[in-house]
Amino acid sequence: MTAPLYFEDLSHGQTFRSRTHTLTAEAIKHFAAEFDPQPFHLDEAAAAASFFAGLCASGWHTTALTMRLLVESVPFAGGVIGAGMDELRWPNPARPGDVLGAVSEIIELRPSRSRPEIGLVKLRITTANQAGAPVLVLVSNNIVPRRDGAAR
Amino acid sequence: MTAPLYFEDLSHGQTFRSRTHTLTAEAIKHFAAEFDPQPFHLDEAAAAASFFAGLCASGWHTTALTMRLLVESVPFAGGVIGAGMDELRWPNPARPGDVLGAVSEIIELRPSRSRPEIGLVKLRITTANQAGAPVLVLVSNNIVPRRDGAAR
Repeated sequence: MTAPLYFEDLSHGQTFRSRTHTLTAEAIKHFAAEFDPQPFHLDEAAAAASFFAGLCASGWHTTALTMRLLVESVPFAGGVIGAGMDELRWPNPARPGDVLGAVSEIIELRPSRSRPEIGLVKLRITTANQAGAPVLVLVSNNIVPRRDGAAR
Repeated sequence: MTAPLYFEDLSHGQTFRSRTHTLTAEAIKHFAAEFDPQPFHLDEAAAAASFFAGLCASGWHTTALTMRLLVESVPFAGGVIGAGMDELRWPNPARPGDVLGAVSEIIELRPSRSRPEIGLVKLRITTANQAGAPVLVLVSNNIVPRRDGAAR
């Protein structure tokens, strides 16, 4: 277990690397049935004939899995609290059998002007498969408490 | 059932309104246990003491639910295929009992320069609760086939 990191503990360029997670066809279909019921996420034959030329995960499934990996690998005090995302891309489809891992890099650090107890931390998150091909790129604005926040 | 809409059928300012969906505490905890296991999404007492001052849905849960509402309400030919998101915000937390509905507005239409069979459609999607307060704002870039695409 890593000690929780406060805003003052963070530096530009700092990176966090997650464990990997293996995506299964069953999980792809299960998520899609609830949240993104489109043929290319539900059925191999329909997917083969589609834009995606084969079964692939909903982009929102890839994103949700990435969040799971972030919660486990980014030890911000107070948790991983996103104030919003500036950009989200899925450069390649995520396929059954893909072994996915996420790397998060701090690309901006800024104390909040209106709320002295927190800082704003911009992360660039890349989730890639076993071949190193990115399946998700996300620029996330996170809220991280300041170490001396309670005293202000 | 609405007839599928091709790129040529779409116009700037056109909107699509979804049905509503009621969020439950059980669903919030179920999603969080799999994808965003943080105290403020898993447990009422821990959530009450947190940044969020009460149980609220993972932003990724709100986003996944929005996708479900979009798949049912945006009748693009070929389905709802996102090429990426420019912006994603959660202006207010989504709480147990919230009745959520999504409105999607076309804010940009552009034929693809490199791929004559498709057009690019930018949507601004707002998911709001029963009080009209937005819980999600998303600017989404979608791929929509052209009616005469196969002939090109």
